[in-house]
Parts: sequence; structure tokens; C-alpha cells
Amino acid sequence: MTTENSVKTTRAGNVPGTTVNDPAPSPALLFDTLNAYQRTAGIKAAIELDVFGAMAGGPGTVEIIASHCHASPRGIRILCDYLTVLGFLTKSGNQYALTPDSALFLNPKSPAYAGGTLQFLLSNEIKGAFEHFTEAARQGGTAQSQDGTVAPEHPVWVSFARSMGPLMVPAAAGLADLIALDQNRPTKVLDISASHCTWSIAFATKNQKTQIVALDWAPVLEVAVENARKAGVADRFCTIAGSAFEVEFGSEYDVVLVPNFLHHFNAADCVRFLKKAHAALRPGGTVAIVEFVPNPDRVTPPAAAGFSLIMLATTPEGDAYTFAEFSDMLARAGFNPPSLCSLPASLNVAVIARK
Amino acid sequence: MTTENSVKTTRAGNVPGTTVNDPAPSPALLFDTLNAYQRTAGIKAAIELDVFGAMAGGPGTVEIIASHCHASPRGIRILCDYLTVLGFLTKSGNQYALTPDSALFLNPKSPAYAGGTLQFLLSNEIKGAFEHFTEAARQGGTAQSQDGTVAPEHPVWVSFARSMGPLMVPAAAGLADLIALDQNRPTKVLDISASHCTWSIAFATKNQKTQIVALDWAPVLEVAVENARKAGVADRFCTIAGSAFEVEFGSEYDVVLVPNFLHHFNAADCVRFLKKAHAALRPGGTVAIVEFVPNPDRVTPPAAAGFSLIMLATTPEGDAYTFAEFSDMLARAGFNPPSLCSLPASLNVAVIARK
Repeated sequence: MTTENSVKTTRAGNVPGTTVNDPAPSPALLFDTLNAYQRTAGIKAAIELDVFGAMAGGPGTVEIIASHCHASPRGIRILCDYLTVLGFLTKSGNQYALTPDSALFLNPKSPAYAGGTLQFLLSNEIKGAFEHFTEAARQGGTAQSQDGTVAPEHPVWVSFARSMGPLMVPAAAGLADLIALDQNRPTKVLDISASHCTWSIAFATKNQKTQIVALDWAPVLEVAVENARKAGVADRFCTIAGSAFEVEFGSEYDVVLVPNFLHHFNAADCVRFLKKAHAALRPGGTVAIVEFVPNPDRVTPPAAAGFSLIMLATTPEGDAYTFAEFSDMLARAGFNPPSLCSLPASLNVAVIARK
Repeated sequence: MTTENSVKTTRAGNVPGTTVNDPAPSPALLFDTLNAYQRTAGIKAAIELDVFGAMAGGPGTVEIIASHCHASPRGIRILCDYLTVLGFLTKSGNQYALTPDSALFLNPKSPAYAGGTLQFLLSNEIKGAFEHFTEAARQGGTAQSQDGTVAPEHPVWVSFARSMGPLMVPAAAGLADLIALDQNRPTKVLDISASHCTWSIAFATKNQKTQIVALDWAPVLEVAVENARKAGVADRFCTIAGSAFEVEFGSEYDVVLVPNFLHHFNAADCVRFLKKAHAALRPGGTVAIVEFVPNPDRVTPPAAAGFSLIMLATTPEGDAYTFAEFSDMLARAGFNPPSLCSLPASLNVAVIARK
């Protein structure tokens, strides 16, 4: 009888989600992927039960966390072990603690709290679209409804605006730092699919003479107005309600911000939009496209490459475009060659070009 | 303006599902986990569309794979890129190819084909239980129904028996190699929760004088009988229908196999069962428990540690037990100290003890 002293040497030790390097065959990746929906359920439960809030003041035992969450010790023990496996917690003896990322993004008292994003990310419009994903892959576009999330006035964008803003704050500040505005004259920033308005508010906060023009569906703009008021920039803020493909933008903008908008559309529509943006800019003005941008191989980096899947499930023709594809679109719209810039604490990058 | 020449250096390059080592904060793990259900949808679509079968004869382009799958090139391109990100395919230029594990487990013509496991793993009884997971974590046991999957005659076990067998073949052969039976006399193997009967059929195939006694719910045993017939061991095969906690086992068994059964129950019930198994064995007989066995820290290795979550979602009191916990249960049931043995191509390990 062959025996081992520890399970540590078994195949079960592979990290889920990574490619198996060991040449021996293993169904680990298959099982991990078929069961991946359980990760979603685990983090959702942890957020809903306030597991992370229970450790905001320091490490906690199962009993302390269960008491804070009004949950059973057995359920909390299994959930916290699972959160440790996933990398959201650390475990030392019988004490669990927040990782630095969990303390920043999952403590409800943190200004960068992102637990609310599940309202959008796990909404019926997004997660529900994946119930029909096999059909979407077969037909090459969303199978949930005719236009998916790009239908006019789709209510999911109100949910997006209400839940996704806080997470964008560091990246928005980073983008505002990348694009210097003239402090000696009034400047104008057009925010396309403004949503929570986090991107343009960062520009207005940094530049005291900057006026924001926020464009989105009318119900979404109510959230934008609220946020502009909270940020103290309501006196330099106005709105345009409607489709970015149809409404008049006005002119003489210094910056047109295009945050996470173009991925919903095909390349021809992106060029059509960028021509409108080009026409609305003053000479030397800047367009800043914030996006998930895969490398030319379209399979790296993982988060940007994987984003195409969400567009396949939720839109008729959206995609995650490469830098070369954005460069081509921008050239066809009349812009100078763009730069690719990373943004802090974000999976997004910025593609920035001048008129 | 700060610029970079490539997105390769951005934070988006982190591998999803792994803990971020970079000290800069990142929401990558949170987003990857909230979106993890998309991995499930992706592999499900690939199996349902026969994407892997399209590359069984060699690498293929989007057009070739789409033609084989009767699917749109756009859907196949995005899906195959995603499968490459996850590690199921490789991509070189415009050609996709199967990894060795995908060729073994996901080519429908492979004898170890495991695509059928989605019938069980994504069944309403298992995946559906996670729709109520927050409540399960709160109350410390399944919130889907009173008894979850351990309800008498639960139909999910027929689905399990029909879909999970092929995957267990290498591990079952490995287990049969670990436990030598006397070739000079008739021997008897009792297979508890026999299901597809893969584990005991491996013993009967290796040992020509071995008789199988398969125990499971009556509808499940129909699958066991079919498989015994296919394996050519039907003349050394009989069944016991009913609950392993209630029916008579008979006596003088050489081996009692307990594959993936004990994790459904609390420790006291496990001991109660093991006492029955002990009584049914001849002196010197062997009990072989096949299980997901986490290390004492309960957070490694990932697949075994994470298995507790499935028991929390789907059973009232089940768990993934450590080797120390199994050793204690076995001692209380009268067994000698056990050994822990790895099994080939499996996330399971075997805990083997003698009477």
C-alpha cells in the first residue's frame, strides 16, 4: 500500500483558476471552472452578511464574526475558510483578518468601498444574460433581448451609476492628473455616458475653472446631478439627456471623456461616435477613452481579454478592442496617434489622443 | 502626460483568482470573483457547442471551429479567447488547440470525457442551492429544502451516477492497486453509495474472484447494474437498495468502499456508519474512504478546502473532514490508525484503515 504523510503533495494542491503545469492529467481546472459560480455566491454572501465589516477593527474568530453578522458559527467558519482560499482573508490559528485590498474595497466604512457593485454586476440584466450564454455564443450576440443593455434608457444604467462610482475614484483622479488643463481660462469637459460622473468630477475638482457637461439617459443624470452636488461642483455642471449617437454635443470642449462606453458598440459605430467627439473639441483638445484593452493576442491580460465575454452576453455587437483597433478608429475620426496610459487601482486603461 | 507603450505593465495583468502580490491596491480579485459565474457559463457553452470536439483532430481557426459548432465566428472567437484565458486552450497566431487536459477530459471521444459532469454539477439541486447561499451561510446549513441532497431517494443521485462515472476511472484503478486482495479465494467488496459503481468495478476487474455488493437508492442501482453489465462483471454483482444507515450490510467483507459519502453527514453520523462498516468486515478487512480532505488549517489545498462550501449549500450538516477528524472517527468505530493515499488524476484522496 502506497501512503503519504500529507495531502499537500496531491493534485488537489493546484491553485484554482491557473493552468496546471504538472504533466500528470488532472480534472482540477474543469471542476474549478464548472464550480466557479460558487465563488460569486461566496463573495455575495460575505458582502450581504457584512463579514468584512466584522473584521474592520482587527482580526476576529468565528464566534466574533458570527455574532457581528447574526449568523451561525458553522456557516461563518465554512464561508471564512472559503474567503481565505480565494484570497480575501488571511487565517492564522483561529483568527481571520482582512487583506489590504479587502480593507480598502470591502470594509463598508472605507471611502473606496466596492461591495455595492454587486447591485450592478449581479443584476438580472448582466448576470441574467449569462443564463442564455450558450445561445449568445452560437448567434454571436446577446440572447437575452434584442438590444441587450444598449437598449435606449435601459434601467440597468441607473443601477450602474448608483453602485460603481466609488470604485472609480482613484482611477478618475489619475486620469485628471494625466491631462493638464489651462488654469488661466474657463475650460469645458464633456463626459459621455457620464453615469455617476466620477470621471468628470475629478477634472472639475482639480481644475477650478472647469465646467462639466454630463451626457447620459435622463434617469441616470439624476444620479450625476446628486454626485455633482455632493462634490461641490454643481455650479459648474450641466447635462445633456439622450443618446450619444443622436444628441448635439455643443462645441469648443477641451476634453471629451469616453469612459467604458465604446465597448458596447461595433467598430463602425465607434468611428461614427469619435467623429462627433472630434467635431466637438477645440483645436488641440483631447479625447480620453477609458476601456478594457487586451493585447494584440486578445488573450492577455486576463481581465481585459475576458471582458469581451460580457459584451458577447449582454450586447448585440460590443467588444473589448485592442490598442491597435482604437488607434485605427481614432485615425479614421481625424485624431492624432494616441497614447496608452495605465490608471491607478483599476482594470481600465486610458487611450488618449489629441485633435 | 505619462504614457506607456504597452498594457502589459498595467495592473490588469494580474492573473484572476490569485492573491495580488503587488502592494498597490487593486479591485481585480473582487471583480474576478463577482464575475466568476461567467467562467461557469463559458465552459458550459463550450461543452454544449462541442468546441473541444472541433479541435480533437488538431488545431483550428475560428472559422473551422465555428463551422463544426454551427455557431457564429464572432461568438466562437470571443469564447475561444476566453477559454484560452482560463487555460483550456492554447492560441498561436489564429490557431486554437486543446491542452493535454482538455484533450483527455473534454474531447467527447476520449474515454475519460468529463463534459457530462455538468448534468450533475450544474443541476438545479446543486447549482440551484447556491441561489440561497447567503441564507445557508446565515443558518449554517442548506436553505434550499429541509434535507437538501441527503433527502431519501433524492433524484440528483441518478444524475450523478449517469454523469460522474467516467471521471473516476483512473482514481478507481489507483485505489484497486492500493488494496491487494487474496487471489486464491472468493473475496467480497461492499460499495457504499455505489452510484455508477466505478470504484468497485475497478476491484472486480482487477480481481477475478471478487464479488461486488452495491448499495444505493433503488433508482440509482439501475445505473450500477447497467455499468456492471458493460464491464463484464454482472455475474459477480448484487445490490442492496436503501439507506446505508438503515439496511443490513451482510458480513465477512474484505473491503468496504465509502466513496464521497461521509462528507454529507455530521461527525457523529459518520462514526455511527463506520461502526456498521466495521461490523460488516472480516478480521483484517479494509475500509477505504474516498474524500476531499483539507489540511488541518482547513484552507489548503484549495479544492479540498473549498468543498465544505458545497456541503454548506446543499446539506444540513455535511463537511469536508481533515485526516485527523477521519482518524478520530475511525478510532471511535474500532479501526486501526489509517493511512492517507493520493489517487491518480483526482481531487479525491483515500483514507484507508484496517479492522
